[in-house]
Amino acid sequence: MTNNIINKTPSAYAYPLLIKNLLANPLRQFPNQEIVYGDFKRQTYREMGERIHRLANGLAGLGVKPGDTVAVMDWDSHRYLECFFAIPMMGAVLHTVNIRLSPEQILYTINHAEDDVILVNTEFLPVLEAIRDRIEPVKKLVLLNDADQPPATSLNIDTEYEALLAASDPNYPFADFSEDTRATTFYTTGTTGLPKGVYFSHRQLVLHTFSVMTALTGSRQGITRNDVYLPITPMFHVHAWGVPYIATVMGVKQIYPGRYVPAHLLRLIQREQVTFSHCVPTILQMLLASPVVNEVDLSRWKVIIGGSALSPTLAQQARARGVDVFTAYGMSETCPILTLAQLKPHMLDWDEERQLDIRCKTGLPVPLVELRVVDEEMNDLPHDGKTPGEVVVRAPWLTQGYLKDPRNSEALWHGGYLHTGDIGVIDEEGYLKITDRLKDVIKTGGEWVSSLELENLILKHPAIEEAAVIGVPDPKWGERPLAVVVRKDGQEVGETDIKALLQDFAAKGIISKYGVPDRVVFVDVLPKTSVGKLDKKVMRAQYTVE
Amino acid sequence: MTNNIINKTPSAYAYPLLIKNLLANPLRQFPNQEIVYGDFKRQTYREMGERIHRLANGLAGLGVKPGDTVAVMDWDSHRYLECFFAIPMMGAVLHTVNIRLSPEQILYTINHAEDDVILVNTEFLPVLEAIRDRIEPVKKLVLLNDADQPPATSLNIDTEYEALLAASDPNYPFADFSEDTRATTFYTTGTTGLPKGVYFSHRQLVLHTFSVMTALTGSRQGITRNDVYLPITPMFHVHAWGVPYIATVMGVKQIYPGRYVPAHLLRLIQREQVTFSHCVPTILQMLLASPVVNEVDLSRWKVIIGGSALSPTLAQQARARGVDVFTAYGMSETCPILTLAQLKPHMLDWDEERQLDIRCKTGLPVPLVELRVVDEEMNDLPHDGKTPGEVVVRAPWLTQGYLKDPRNSEALWHGGYLHTGDIGVIDEEGYLKITDRLKDVIKTGGEWVSSLELENLILKHPAIEEAAVIGVPDPKWGERPLAVVVRKDGQEVGETDIKALLQDFAAKGIISKYGVPDRVVFVDVLPKTSVGKLDKKVMRAQYTVE
Repeated sequence: MTNNIINKTPSAYAYPLLIKNLLANPLRQFPNQEIVYGDFKRQTYREMGERIHRLANGLAGLGVKPGDTVAVMDWDSHRYLECFFAIPMMGAVLHTVNIRLSPEQILYTINHAEDDVILVNTEFLPVLEAIRDRIEPVKKLVLLNDADQPPATSLNIDTEYEALLAASDPNYPFADFSEDTRATTFYTTGTTGLPKGVYFSHRQLVLHTFSVMTALTGSRQGITRNDVYLPITPMFHVHAWGVPYIATVMGVKQIYPGRYVPAHLLRLIQREQVTFSHCVPTILQMLLASPVVNEVDLSRWKVIIGGSALSPTLAQQARARGVDVFTAYGMSETCPILTLAQLKPHMLDWDEERQLDIRCKTGLPVPLVELRVVDEEMNDLPHDGKTPGEVVVRAPWLTQGYLKDPRNSEALWHGGYLHTGDIGVIDEEGYLKITDRLKDVIKTGGEWVSSLELENLILKHPAIEEAAVIGVPDPKWGERPLAVVVRKDGQEVGETDIKALLQDFAAKGIISKYGVPDRVVFVDVLPKTSVGKLDKKVMRAQYTVE
Repeated sequence: MTNNIINKTPSAYAYPLLIKNLLANPLRQFPNQEIVYGDFKRQTYREMGERIHRLANGLAGLGVKPGDTVAVMDWDSHRYLECFFAIPMMGAVLHTVNIRLSPEQILYTINHAEDDVILVNTEFLPVLEAIRDRIEPVKKLVLLNDADQPPATSLNIDTEYEALLAASDPNYPFADFSEDTRATTFYTTGTTGLPKGVYFSHRQLVLHTFSVMTALTGSRQGITRNDVYLPITPMFHVHAWGVPYIATVMGVKQIYPGRYVPAHLLRLIQREQVTFSHCVPTILQMLLASPVVNEVDLSRWKVIIGGSALSPTLAQQARARGVDVFTAYGMSETCPILTLAQLKPHMLDWDEERQLDIRCKTGLPVPLVELRVVDEEMNDLPHDGKTPGEVVVRAPWLTQGYLKDPRNSEALWHGGYLHTGDIGVIDEEGYLKITDRLKDVIKTGGEWVSSLELENLILKHPAIEEAAVIGVPDPKWGERPLAVVVRKDGQEVGETDIKALLQDFAAKGIISKYGVPDRVVFVDVLPKTSVGKLDKKVMRAQYTVE
């Protein structure tokens, strides 16, 4: 046969991978399954389906057309889930605004994304009021309000979400269109420069959903139809890691918590019998440190940790409560999931300590992710668990670049791979372990020292709450590590204690002796970025100047 | 934004959905996992990976180029699994020859598919010898031989599989190409006319893999990484329902049994601790009827039943052995899986009898399958569990038509949907139940009578082994049902007993009184098609003439 390409489009049998196709079956098969919004609302999948149609008609009535952009400023809610579906399903683009950014940054992202309509929670009206005169051009505003009374505001609100839905038709004719149509956009804030917009198509979101779903469902550490899902990673942050789409396809009960207040989250876990969540280490730490935790049974709770590395100390604390905790890895640019640190079947018999080591690894690539650790010439490095290199990836769901930003986009992709900027090692079992950020790795006397590894070792000291290690310029060695640490409340610990601890690890061969910092600085609080990551740029500036 | 289509191809970040991308991660993550071929061979995933590369190089050495077709005539084997990957990954087309067809039909499919190379098990050499002079043009032949000695044959064998692999390089540079490239083809034999070729692209097989995998893994009735997989649906029959691809992506242990001999299959289940299989009802019946079954613990065995309906009687027999049995539905044209009759979480508490009813339904559509039951004007019929109509479907993995057969292709698709030719009802829970084939449904006095339902009721008689109900022409009523039945060995039962049984069901309102057949005919054996389905065309011809 000379030509064996199946001529697919346009044809009667073309079937584009569209978000609407994720939604249809669960609505039919699990119509009475529940979606809970904190203490405010319980609704069924059937009601959600109807509200998605009403929302699409309501937005169309406000003038939203295919290709337009609709921004959402809300905490995690059933409304947000409805927007996850309705807005892309219309052929419009969902812009999930990071409400933790400064008003100036939010203004930048609204203008840069060219939002046409903004759905805004009452709580964020002051932000919009502060920047209203510089939003261009004038947007339609839809209010998201949990109170009985309309709020006082100087803004011109076009309509309120529930009123809009009530006034709209419950049947919207969601059309087929190209699966390569942009579905979502949002902004990632590194520690340098302006926020950068990433974007994902329907095809990318559908494929991410299926691949991650199979990785999660094929393991005991995952999600089944019997699970109850509570996201604790904001929906504005990489679609809450895409798990709301997965949970919906599976027809599981979903709990959207609103704000992340530890006692509130713990009570929801208890009341709704939550079994599956994901969050950053800081949130897990806050939950375990809350006095309410003693009233909650966490022994059926599975939690994926991402955003930053899961420290063995924190993992151990969670395991002591019976939490089935393990790591996921990805970034805004990767939709986000690339790896999951689930135990392989033969590891289920291992003792707790060996298992803990796996749970704290970065994980195994999920299906369809091609992940390599390479040197500067893009050669694969040995899978020996100790030879570090840059992590580069291919997958069907990586951002093609940054929105309207060809210069930064070009730096993201080369040699056919997205370059993560992370340094990692792959072990014999195939597990990746991120050891550092390319820009955070410390180069001293020609050797690489992992700041992340040093931080984890310092955290083993019982009196230390938080730790950051940075490289500071040194005339002789190029760079030298410097530790910035926070004591636990009421604890006594000094520079010599920390150095002694690390010298002890160096004597045991766990780190090189060059890795022991020359200085340990005690502070009350570590500088963090808007998404709660250590801001090493700020620290480097501070301690280099000194 | 005026244009929000992401311009994907060609570009640095294009990621086509290719079969090679299913294989890469399991080879790295589960290199020591086992693949067993009956009593002949055990090999690891690592070895399989190397053999796939060698096979591709070996076939290339025989002249196979992208777009060529390679046919396989084998029982289920590790070799066949290697062909599932290597041949499409080269950009060639895998033709899985149905070795149960007659030599004349096999000849037709080999010529129609324009096979370039044939891989043939020693056992099928006589078939090729019989048709050799009419195979056009001359093909290269690769022998698949389990014996130590080469067989005696008049055919010109080019090479033997293991010798070919041993002589070939273990690194083949599998290239990227369009995901719409044809990957497989095979022939479906209805009860009329010549075999018809269906065909599937890389994209279709990858998407079928992921959707069915999520449906299987998201439920307790499915497959996890801890399962051991034994297919008992031939690999030439719709890629063994696509499950070998799923099992490989998940990295599970796989057992390929060779021929389907009940005692052999049962011993493999016991020896390898098999937990997951799929088969047609006849095979399950044979396994349960084998004396060897008493030596085998089947209480951890999950089995999907497809091909024909699972009768409550057979399901009950399987449940009595502890087998977790449930139905799947699809056809050659649909790659094949459309639905799975897994229990929803709230049904897990139901009593055995209610659960049995669900297990014997046709099932819930798997993700991305849009399945409708419609009247002749394509209107949706109510989901009330009793209003029958034709089952029509959309999904990303349906054949676009029959190979080089535009006339039959046209009949398959209309109104944007593939028409299955099956009659079914959908219940309030969303489960489909096939009640008949469109061409087997009996129209009597303006009413539809389901032949399948009558057959199941007749099978409730303890003395009946098998039953078929067909419509025969009737001057007054148009058609009247006629039952053709097989007695169990040594049992006494007559026409009046069967009629009395059905009249009793009619009195209880379970069937209409028009549904009771006027005649019941006792035979020793029912005519069947090459894939073991009741051949009602033959029966209608026979009993209409009489």
